[in-house]
Amino acid sequence: MECRPLASPDPSREKVSSMSASSNIRPNMQRLWATLMRSAEIGTTAKGGLRRLALSEDDGIMRRQFRDWCEETGLAVRVDAVGNMFALRKGTDPAAKAVLVGSHLDTQIKGGRFDGILGVLAGLELVRTLDDHAIETRHPIVVVNWTNEEGARFEPPMIGSAVFTGDKSLDFALSRTDKDGVTLGQALETIGFKGADTVGPESCDSLFELHIEQGPQLDEQGLQVGIVTGAFAVRGFVVEVTGETGHVGPTPMSKRRNALVGAAQVILALDAIGWSEHATGGKTTTMRLKAEPNLLGILPDHVEMTCDMRHCEEAVVIRMMETLKQQLPELEEKSRCRIAIREGWAYGGMRFDAGCVGLVRDAVQEFGYSHRDLLTEAGHDAMHIANHLPTAMIFTPCEGGLSHNEAENVTLADIEPGVNVLLQAVLARAL
Amino acid sequence: MECRPLASPDPSREKVSSMSASSNIRPNMQRLWATLMRSAEIGTTAKGGLRRLALSEDDGIMRRQFRDWCEETGLAVRVDAVGNMFALRKGTDPAAKAVLVGSHLDTQIKGGRFDGILGVLAGLELVRTLDDHAIETRHPIVVVNWTNEEGARFEPPMIGSAVFTGDKSLDFALSRTDKDGVTLGQALETIGFKGADTVGPESCDSLFELHIEQGPQLDEQGLQVGIVTGAFAVRGFVVEVTGETGHVGPTPMSKRRNALVGAAQVILALDAIGWSEHATGGKTTTMRLKAEPNLLGILPDHVEMTCDMRHCEEAVVIRMMETLKQQLPELEEKSRCRIAIREGWAYGGMRFDAGCVGLVRDAVQEFGYSHRDLLTEAGHDAMHIANHLPTAMIFTPCEGGLSHNEAENVTLADIEPGVNVLLQAVLARAL
Repeated sequence: MECRPLASPDPSREKVSSMSASSNIRPNMQRLWATLMRSAEIGTTAKGGLRRLALSEDDGIMRRQFRDWCEETGLAVRVDAVGNMFALRKGTDPAAKAVLVGSHLDTQIKGGRFDGILGVLAGLELVRTLDDHAIETRHPIVVVNWTNEEGARFEPPMIGSAVFTGDKSLDFALSRTDKDGVTLGQALETIGFKGADTVGPESCDSLFELHIEQGPQLDEQGLQVGIVTGAFAVRGFVVEVTGETGHVGPTPMSKRRNALVGAAQVILALDAIGWSEHATGGKTTTMRLKAEPNLLGILPDHVEMTCDMRHCEEAVVIRMMETLKQQLPELEEKSRCRIAIREGWAYGGMRFDAGCVGLVRDAVQEFGYSHRDLLTEAGHDAMHIANHLPTAMIFTPCEGGLSHNEAENVTLADIEPGVNVLLQAVLARAL
Repeated sequence: MECRPLASPDPSREKVSSMSASSNIRPNMQRLWATLMRSAEIGTTAKGGLRRLALSEDDGIMRRQFRDWCEETGLAVRVDAVGNMFALRKGTDPAAKAVLVGSHLDTQIKGGRFDGILGVLAGLELVRTLDDHAIETRHPIVVVNWTNEEGARFEPPMIGSAVFTGDKSLDFALSRTDKDGVTLGQALETIGFKGADTVGPESCDSLFELHIEQGPQLDEQGLQVGIVTGAFAVRGFVVEVTGETGHVGPTPMSKRRNALVGAAQVILALDAIGWSEHATGGKTTTMRLKAEPNLLGILPDHVEMTCDMRHCEEAVVIRMMETLKQQLPELEEKSRCRIAIREGWAYGGMRFDAGCVGLVRDAVQEFGYSHRDLLTEAGHDAMHIANHLPTAMIFTPCEGGLSHNEAENVTLADIEPGVNVLLQAVLARAL
């Protein structure tokens, strides 16, 4: 078993397009690169990455820069109540719905310069290129910047696209708090991006999201483009380990219930489950750990960990979770702690729209780019949208597969094929 | 090998005392209990323990209550520059040095009602009892409250006694910060306990500290008094685990360097070392863990853990540390993380003064209390003092050995023997 799309694309469902007269237009890669490098100056870290948390002052600077670029290009920028930005290039048919193209401009705490940003600025470049060639489209094209994709400041991640689709309510989103107790709503007000525009899926036709792979497959295999046909199944959950405090000096080993010892056993058991499914792309992670009271001299009595499991097959993720649950009684006995799994969540597992994916595949083949089909293993706004609108994603390689890391890197040559494919696929859909 | 004092007490070195005419005086246990219960009202937690962090508002209230009690008893209260409180009952010989008796009034974040507090308030009761019986002593008797014994707000713990002995400088102590960046010096000013008095070991004769055992031996064995002949050898150290961030989705298991996986391996290796020396009272603890970036979606790249090893024999603690160090290369290979031990510290390992311990033993035997010799496995101010002045400690049982826990408990009957012994031993030294 390999991590490929479970169902082969059904050619009969794919919209057949031959590259039109527009097929010889090319984006201005230097112009795109200049916008990426301008973005890389806003929230730069000492190690050359980005720390541009959602709705921070730096995110505000980037959003205004993006708005300025859009308005200079003649796009009308709308902002909705959760801060999602929609830059509209009108179509020729007033009844035609908009083709969305975009991603996000916020980053992780120690994030890279391309994750999300490439997808938004490639959308801008796409529009600029159409203008250069005076190409009109029947459908409007809207370049989108979704709010708080990363979830590094406000949880959950991908909250802007979830409000857009109605999967999460606006009230829920606005009331999320950061670690200092600031709500998402307050942060929007502070940077001046609490908009009054209403935009929803009903006025939209489809979404195309270009993104760096954030994994090593394209880079290792020397491939130019990833055709993303769907998404890994993801389970997130909180593990709570409860022990007992006591003095680290006199309390004998046999009377201890050190919650960090219980937590360590869970971390290694979970890691082993990831390894057991490694051959088919499965993975498990303990991402976050908080211990209490977490002080010198005292046995920790409480640990809360946030964990993640992913596999391309829903059934395998279910089995991985069952395996962990079955091991808990033994881990409880060994550590003398109580171990409970709570607050589970699940997303992904879907396959993208055959029509939109077909347009991407057509463009890739027309260009003759080396490519492979992939499932996205990371979460993306496109995964919320895909449940409501025809959606496709395009991956570019990234150096060593490294992402959510200040050293995340791509070259202009790495991204050019993906940007070309994005332009042609969107154009095919919007014409 | 059992965790007993390594050298048997040498009877020839022990001061021989027969209980004098004062030997039939008894402390007023109800009066002592009333002060303990008044203390238990200051900083009370929902679960009936205490959260009275060093130099907090509640610590200030408790200190003022203690000062009021001392002054009502006719004691002159001095406060030094690090906030240590010395309540002086004069002796008859102006040349005689003071016998110190006390402990600390601060608590852990989720602490109990007796840890430290018993030792200070038993000192107060001792003086009140001497007054009741109009007993004068040749030596002054000073009831002491040491600042920041617990280290729950400012690190390191036992800082007041370390400044008193000169082991730490005043500047070092005053510049310690709590988690909000408040310095110990600022906190002293805020609660009005930055004193101007100078008190040092040169004006003191000896120290007696009564304390709950904070371990289960006396309680389990049904013994009334613990004669503390010395202290366990303690090693503290910080373990730093360095991995690499990356996206928890696309990064394959084989490319990960999750610092929490490396940390889990260290926690379990350290735990196993404690178990390997468990039969002789050895123990190991991971007390505190901080992971970074500790966010959803990202592999943690850095974990810092604070760990502890204890054994009654210095040589065994050294061996335990060597065992851990020898395992690090294997743990590094398994986790693909770098693991380093840094910031080590060591204390304890000494034996208390034979003369002072002899006075405690005499009193125990005179009363006919069931008892055993013990080494303290917890850190105490007495361990700083013991390097400078003749010192002894007396342990009372505590329920289930539980301490540094809101459920920490003793009954009046549990502590009465220890308080009686304290009174007689101090009196024998001070007369």
